[in-house]
Amino acid sequence: MDRFWNVELNKYNSKENAKYETIFTLANGYRGLRGKNNFSKIGEKGNFIAGIFDQNTAQVTELVNCQDPLVLNFYVDNELIDIDKCEILDFNRKLNMYEGVLYSSYKLKLDSNRIVQIDCERFVSRKNVHRWAEKYTLRPVNFKSKMFIENIIDGTVVNSCNDPINLTKHFNVIDKLDLKPGLALLTKTIDKGIYIVESTRIYADDLFKTRKFIELGEKVREVYEFFVEEGEEYTIYKYGCTYTSKDTKEDIVSVCKSELKDFQTIGYDKEKEQHLQEWKKLWNSMDIRIKGDDIAQVGIRFNMFQLASCAYEKDYTVSIGAKGLHGEGYKGHVFWDTEIFMIPFFTYTNPEIAKALLMYRYNTLCGARKNASLNGFKGSQFPWESADDGTEVTPKWGVDYDGNPVRIWTGDEEYHINADIAFAIWEYFRATKDEEFLINYGSEIVLDTAKFWNSRLEYNQKYDRYEINKVIGPDEFHEHVNNNVYTNYLAKWNMNKAIEISRWLKEKDFVKFKNLC
Amino acid sequence: MDRFWNVELNKYNSKENAKYETIFTLANGYRGLRGKNNFSKIGEKGNFIAGIFDQNTAQVTELVNCQDPLVLNFYVDNELIDIDKCEILDFNRKLNMYEGVLYSSYKLKLDSNRIVQIDCERFVSRKNVHRWAEKYTLRPVNFKSKMFIENIIDGTVVNSCNDPINLTKHFNVIDKLDLKPGLALLTKTIDKGIYIVESTRIYADDLFKTRKFIELGEKVREVYEFFVEEGEEYTIYKYGCTYTSKDTKEDIVSVCKSELKDFQTIGYDKEKEQHLQEWKKLWNSMDIRIKGDDIAQVGIRFNMFQLASCAYEKDYTVSIGAKGLHGEGYKGHVFWDTEIFMIPFFTYTNPEIAKALLMYRYNTLCGARKNASLNGFKGSQFPWESADDGTEVTPKWGVDYDGNPVRIWTGDEEYHINADIAFAIWEYFRATKDEEFLINYGSEIVLDTAKFWNSRLEYNQKYDRYEINKVIGPDEFHEHVNNNVYTNYLAKWNMNKAIEISRWLKEKDFVKFKNLC
Repeated sequence: MDRFWNVELNKYNSKENAKYETIFTLANGYRGLRGKNNFSKIGEKGNFIAGIFDQNTAQVTELVNCQDPLVLNFYVDNELIDIDKCEILDFNRKLNMYEGVLYSSYKLKLDSNRIVQIDCERFVSRKNVHRWAEKYTLRPVNFKSKMFIENIIDGTVVNSCNDPINLTKHFNVIDKLDLKPGLALLTKTIDKGIYIVESTRIYADDLFKTRKFIELGEKVREVYEFFVEEGEEYTIYKYGCTYTSKDTKEDIVSVCKSELKDFQTIGYDKEKEQHLQEWKKLWNSMDIRIKGDDIAQVGIRFNMFQLASCAYEKDYTVSIGAKGLHGEGYKGHVFWDTEIFMIPFFTYTNPEIAKALLMYRYNTLCGARKNASLNGFKGSQFPWESADDGTEVTPKWGVDYDGNPVRIWTGDEEYHINADIAFAIWEYFRATKDEEFLINYGSEIVLDTAKFWNSRLEYNQKYDRYEINKVIGPDEFHEHVNNNVYTNYLAKWNMNKAIEISRWLKEKDFVKFKNLC
Repeated sequence: MDRFWNVELNKYNSKENAKYETIFTLANGYRGLRGKNNFSKIGEKGNFIAGIFDQNTAQVTELVNCQDPLVLNFYVDNELIDIDKCEILDFNRKLNMYEGVLYSSYKLKLDSNRIVQIDCERFVSRKNVHRWAEKYTLRPVNFKSKMFIENIIDGTVVNSCNDPINLTKHFNVIDKLDLKPGLALLTKTIDKGIYIVESTRIYADDLFKTRKFIELGEKVREVYEFFVEEGEEYTIYKYGCTYTSKDTKEDIVSVCKSELKDFQTIGYDKEKEQHLQEWKKLWNSMDIRIKGDDIAQVGIRFNMFQLASCAYEKDYTVSIGAKGLHGEGYKGHVFWDTEIFMIPFFTYTNPEIAKALLMYRYNTLCGARKNASLNGFKGSQFPWESADDGTEVTPKWGVDYDGNPVRIWTGDEEYHINADIAFAIWEYFRATKDEEFLINYGSEIVLDTAKFWNSRLEYNQKYDRYEINKVIGPDEFHEHVNNNVYTNYLAKWNMNKAIEISRWLKEKDFVKFKNLC
């Protein structure tokens, strides 16, 4: 194994916390946990579960920033270990992309002159996507003391926390559970009533002396008292499990509690080993070597790591948003980028992921048909920005750099998304020869988008030709464009391909053909 | 008026925020609002209403840190004005004790190089104790921009926020109201179910363009958008009203809403004028001049200002805690200090306050009788630490500087409080000749504490005398002391005074005499 697997940060600057939280995000396609600094309150919390969208008072539906299970605070006596309030003697955060593990290391001198060394590992399991864990190694360098560890699940999380006008909260806290030991916080999204449960517990052999549980409004919290000796090393594990009512019809609190128990029984090391094996398989399928350019080598791996982190081949109802599961940018919405830039990568490395991403479009056809119908067209019109159900969720208004309102036309005019999806289907089929997919799912999309284009065409009597006017092409800085070459070319391709596929379908599956054509 | 009326701070250091919050607290006996820095998140919130106690998971019942109505954030575009994240060009906070007004002035340079000057006044009305207000004067020094102002009532407040093991929350959020404009947050204490409503609204002539209300878990929030021009000055008022179910039998939300409306109708300036008149009256009754020592002059006024801030002559169910209404120290509990050190001051300056403080003891006699009975004594045994009902609330255990548990004996042994209260009653009567008080209230306390002492005495056969052993005197660093001179002397005085008063009562009010003696 060569050495270009790490993204590393050696200098702490709280003003850059939000940026590095994104870079150090760990995700497994099912969910993403932003790489928040363990001992800082500065930054933007982020716990995103693929497919959990909500609007409430926001301008459009957006990926919900769920309750935060990551909070773990250490106190020496009553002195909180807070990196922003103490002297940093040593600092290192390192994302090992080969392993999918985030390593953080802190040597901090508190106001009381006590020096503490804390090393932390975190992974979001690729093997069992509902699981994540942390391992803390704590060493009091120059003191012996009583300490406290405070484990919290924080239900006060909002979306757009730094945006005064768009800030909103997408869930209510429904139940606060003491798992004795461990915590669970059950929430429910505002619009669709999706239940989300986060549960955590911490464990440290015989270290902990007393435990106190308390409900604090929208938070649950357990605090443990323990005693440490100078120079000794103490290991503390934190286990986390997550379920939503999208995952199962069973009682998700019971499911989550039981999985959390199993997780701790298996233990941190075994789960981590399975997680590493999964990442090893992924890298075997996709790694690209660049010789002679070390930065490019790390860079290309960073790109692949993020793509693989956002993909989950087992869920056919979600796709990859423009900002992945890493932050709130673009509201978690899915754009043409997935079909044009991401799916080719997966088609040739992990075709089952490519298929899952295309199945998301199939499963949102109902919304796409509504869009077409609302706009006076036939067939299916896929949304320029897509969330959970395929209806158009592009905001109608934004603001420019001076804060002036600006009408956003992409949701009205950027039609090429329809041909992009059809094109991705064909490219997937070309590479995989997955006839089952094309017969049962892909052909319906290609035919329905062709029907859309057919109804979208405008006949120009003067030139005796069909045109597509008032569109936005891939160059989004030009609006209301007539006959954009990319749009026209792919629309024509889409319609031709529909004819070709309908003939092919007639041969392969006459019943399907009769239904669709 | 001379110039020694101000307590001033010219240099900002976030590590000292908690200290200056206490110094800059404004209180009117009904309630105290800690002097939290307007634009900092660092510090300890504090909204204390006299007499609102709760235990929940805390070691003993404590003064509740209620929901925080003070939060008011300014944004330039989306950039929060946060003193801890920008360059401080000018900073001044000044408590004018003559006025009972806190003046704060900030000139801040944001990360975006925009310079903003904000001056703020705050007062907690001495005239109408349920009211408080702020006036902000905002000047964009070098920019024109869109801005946002965010008004919040924060129901996430806890007690002991920096104490990992004792941290607790004393209320649940019951209702979140949009007053269009304005906000209200109704809460209810855990143990006794006391309702507390905080309401606020902000006003700025024609400045505000749009308003958005949102519920955020345990918070209510309204945000206003407005536009500012370089060099112009903008004035924004914030009005606040507070009621609890201790204050009235009526619906406190309606009462509070209606008073908030009246308050704004009267306006900031008129209310402030009435407030100043009340403080003027107080100073006329109590000011002490020290010539030739300027620091002592400010110091003595600071002491009197705090005493007067904590006293409210109209509420006979509350007294002054060791830390006033200024913080959570000593859990808001009342000690002998009130009778021995504070009441003499009020007896000679504002006897109606002295009477109210003594009436608190009368109204907690029931708890004092319970204490005596529980400990096997007769009469009334006042608690060493007293909260809302006169039962003993001294914690049984504390921790020493090394974090080791220490048994606290004061609640068991510091009996002299009983004679201290009797002594204060007599001193008050001696100065005021308030016979109505002594007949109807004071004599009962003196007689009942005498009965307590009588049952507490131990007969020493060897010396043929009565003794009081195993006590703590005013010197609290010695425990289990025998025949402490202060205790013994005042116990004897208490019993003699009971005999004297009973004879006097027989003359003055034979029915009362028959009932008590």
